[in-house]
Amino acid sequence: MAREFNDVAATLQSIRYNRGSLHLLDQRKLPLETTYLEIRDSTDGWNAIQDMVVRGAPAIAIAAALSLAVEVFNLDGFNGSAGEAVSFLQNKLEYLVSSRPTAVNLSDAAGKLKEVVSNAAATTSEGRSVFQAFIEAAEVMLGDDVASNRAIGSYGASCIQQQTGKQKLSVLTHCNTGSLATAGYGTALGVIRALHSAGVLERAYCTETRPFNQGSRLTAYELVHEKIPATLIADSATAALMKAGSVDAIVVGADRVASNGDTANKIGTYSVALSAKFHNIPFYVAAPLTSVDLSLSSGQEIVIEERSPKELLNARGGLGEQVAASGISVWNPAFDVTPASLISGIITEKGVITKTSADDAFDIKAFVQKTG
Amino acid sequence: MAREFNDVAATLQSIRYNRGSLHLLDQRKLPLETTYLEIRDSTDGWNAIQDMVVRGAPAIAIAAALSLAVEVFNLDGFNGSAGEAVSFLQNKLEYLVSSRPTAVNLSDAAGKLKEVVSNAAATTSEGRSVFQAFIEAAEVMLGDDVASNRAIGSYGASCIQQQTGKQKLSVLTHCNTGSLATAGYGTALGVIRALHSAGVLERAYCTETRPFNQGSRLTAYELVHEKIPATLIADSATAALMKAGSVDAIVVGADRVASNGDTANKIGTYSVALSAKFHNIPFYVAAPLTSVDLSLSSGQEIVIEERSPKELLNARGGLGEQVAASGISVWNPAFDVTPASLISGIITEKGVITKTSADDAFDIKAFVQKTG
Repeated sequence: MAREFNDVAATLQSIRYNRGSLHLLDQRKLPLETTYLEIRDSTDGWNAIQDMVVRGAPAIAIAAALSLAVEVFNLDGFNGSAGEAVSFLQNKLEYLVSSRPTAVNLSDAAGKLKEVVSNAAATTSEGRSVFQAFIEAAEVMLGDDVASNRAIGSYGASCIQQQTGKQKLSVLTHCNTGSLATAGYGTALGVIRALHSAGVLERAYCTETRPFNQGSRLTAYELVHEKIPATLIADSATAALMKAGSVDAIVVGADRVASNGDTANKIGTYSVALSAKFHNIPFYVAAPLTSVDLSLSSGQEIVIEERSPKELLNARGGLGEQVAASGISVWNPAFDVTPASLISGIITEKGVITKTSADDAFDIKAFVQKTG
Repeated sequence: MAREFNDVAATLQSIRYNRGSLHLLDQRKLPLETTYLEIRDSTDGWNAIQDMVVRGAPAIAIAAALSLAVEVFNLDGFNGSAGEAVSFLQNKLEYLVSSRPTAVNLSDAAGKLKEVVSNAAATTSEGRSVFQAFIEAAEVMLGDDVASNRAIGSYGASCIQQQTGKQKLSVLTHCNTGSLATAGYGTALGVIRALHSAGVLERAYCTETRPFNQGSRLTAYELVHEKIPATLIADSATAALMKAGSVDAIVVGADRVASNGDTANKIGTYSVALSAKFHNIPFYVAAPLTSVDLSLSSGQEIVIEERSPKELLNARGGLGEQVAASGISVWNPAFDVTPASLISGIITEKGVITKTSADDAFDIKAFVQKTG
C-alpha cells in the first residue's frame, strides 16, 4: 500500500501519507516556506483543517479521514469490541466534520465512512477489524482522488493535443486546481501536468486570481516546484495575452457544473471564457463527475456566494495592511457562472464531454449513464 | 485669477495653487493619509515629481510649471534684465524636465513655456515682466487642463444619458483618470463626476486595477471623497457585474489613441471592452485631443511597454512583502490596445467622436479638422 502512495511523490503533495503516518503541507506558509506538519490523530487533523493548514474541498475530506486512520492504527492499547470501535470512529468523524461544518465534501466523506464502519461491524466482533476496514477505506479515498485526477489529466491532454493539432502548445489556467487543492496531481492543473509529461507543453500561464491570489501563491508555487515552464500574469492581462497569440488552450476547474454544462468557478473564469470565445481559443473545464450536479438544470440556479470585502480592502487576502481607500463599498463574489455556450468541453475522469453537433449543447446525463 | 482656481476646490485637488503659493497632495500616502506638501520653488517641485508625490502625465507637467511660477513670484531680490530672466527660467525648466526625463507631457510643456519666455523677452527689457508672462502661462496651463476635463465631463454625461435613455444609470471605470491624475476634475472620472452632478448617476463601479491598484487606492479615494455612491470590484469581476445587469455604460481613459480610434490604455481595458461588447453595453473612451496621435494609423503601431515583475511578485505595487512564489516568470504589460470596433465613442473636450454609420469606423482626422 505504501508503494502506491509513494508514486504520488512525483508531484507536489499537500498530503504525505504512509500507513500509520500523516504529514500535511502547511499551506498558510506558502509560498514563502515549505513546511510539513505531523498529524498524529483526529485532534491534530481538526486543528489543521480549522487553521487552514490544508484547503481545497477534496484535500480537506481526505486529510480528515487519514488523521483518524493514523490515530486508530497507532492505538496500541485498544482491545474493545466491534461496537465500541464503531462508536469511537463515529464520534471522531462527527468531531472532524465540526472543523469546517459547511464543507460538503467533508460531511459527504464522513457519511460514507460511517457506512463502511457499520458494515464492517456486521461481519466481525473484533474492534481492531473495524479499525482495519476504516483505515483501508480512508486509503481508498486518497488513492481514488489521485487516480481520478490522473485520468482527467490524461483525457484532457489527449483532447487538447487533438483539438489544437499542435506539436507544442501553451495553456492558460485560472485559480489553483493542483496538488494543493486535491489529494494530488490536480484537475485543470493535472491536465497541464499531463501535457508537460507528454512533452507537448510549451508554457503554462497562470493568473494571480484576485482577490485571494491562489494563482500567484499556490499555482505558481506548484509550477515552479514541478519545473514546468510557467508565467504569472495579472487577471486583467488574460485578453491581451490571447491577442498576442500566446495561448493555444484554456483549462479551468469547477466548483459546480449544472446539468446543461453551465459552470460555476472562481470569479474571473467567465471573463476569461468571453475573451477565449472572441479569440477563438478552446476553453475547457476539468472536474471529476462528483462536481456535476444533475439536479441543477442551468447555472441560473446557482447562488453566487459573496465573500468578505476585506479581501479587496487589505493585503494578503484581507489579513494584511490596508490597501484600498477607507469607506469604499465592495462587491466580492466568490465565483461566477460561465455558460455552456462558451465551453468547448468538460474533462472528467471518464472522458471528455463534448457537445452534440445537432444542437451545440452538452448532454451530461447521457454521458453519466453511458459511463456509469 | 485666484477665484478661478478656487472654483476647482469643489472637487478633490492634487494641485492647490494660488498665485505665489503651491501645495501638492502627497499621493504616496494615499489612501491612508491626506497630506499636502508646500512647494516653494523648482527644487521642491523637482523632488515632488521625482519622489512620486504627484503622478499622472498632465498633473506632473503642471506641477513642474507652477513650482517655478511660485519661485519667481516670490523672488523679491531679483532686478535682472529680460535676458537674465530668460536664462534663469530656461535653466530651471531644463532642471525640472530632468526629474522625469521620459515624461513626454513634461518636456512638451517645458518646450512651450520656453517659447513663451523667449517671446516675452522680445517685447520688454525688464526681467520681472518676463517672470510675469511665465507665471501667467503656467496658470493658463492649469486652467486649460481643468477646463478641458470639464468639457469632456459635460459632453460625456450628455452622450451617455442620451445613449442609454435612462433616468438613473450606473457606470464602470478602470484605473485612475480623476483629479489625482490631472490638474483637476479628470477625464473618464470627470464624466462620472458630471453624471453625478446632473443627478443621474445611480452608482460608479471602479476596478482594483492590478497590479498597481490605482483603482482601489486612488479612484476609490476620489469617489469616497466626493461622496459619489461607489463600489470597488476585482478586475476579474467586471464580466460577472455586467452579466448581473448592474452596468449601463463604461468609461475609461486613454494613454494614446491612434487615428483609427484604436486605444492604448491601462492593462485590462481590452478585457473590459470585450465583456462590454458581449453584454451589449456602450463602451466609451474619454481623453483630451492631445492624446490622439494622428501619426499612428492603428493600434498595431503602439509598442506595449512592460513593467517590473515586482509589481506582481510583491505587495504594494512591488514595494511590499513577497506575495507570489519564488522563481515564477512574470509578464506585466503596462497597457493593452482596445480596437476601435469595441469602442462606442471617444469623448473629447470638443465633443464626442462617433462612428460614421456607413463603414462603422471613426473619422478622427475629419473631427479634428472640423473642431480645430
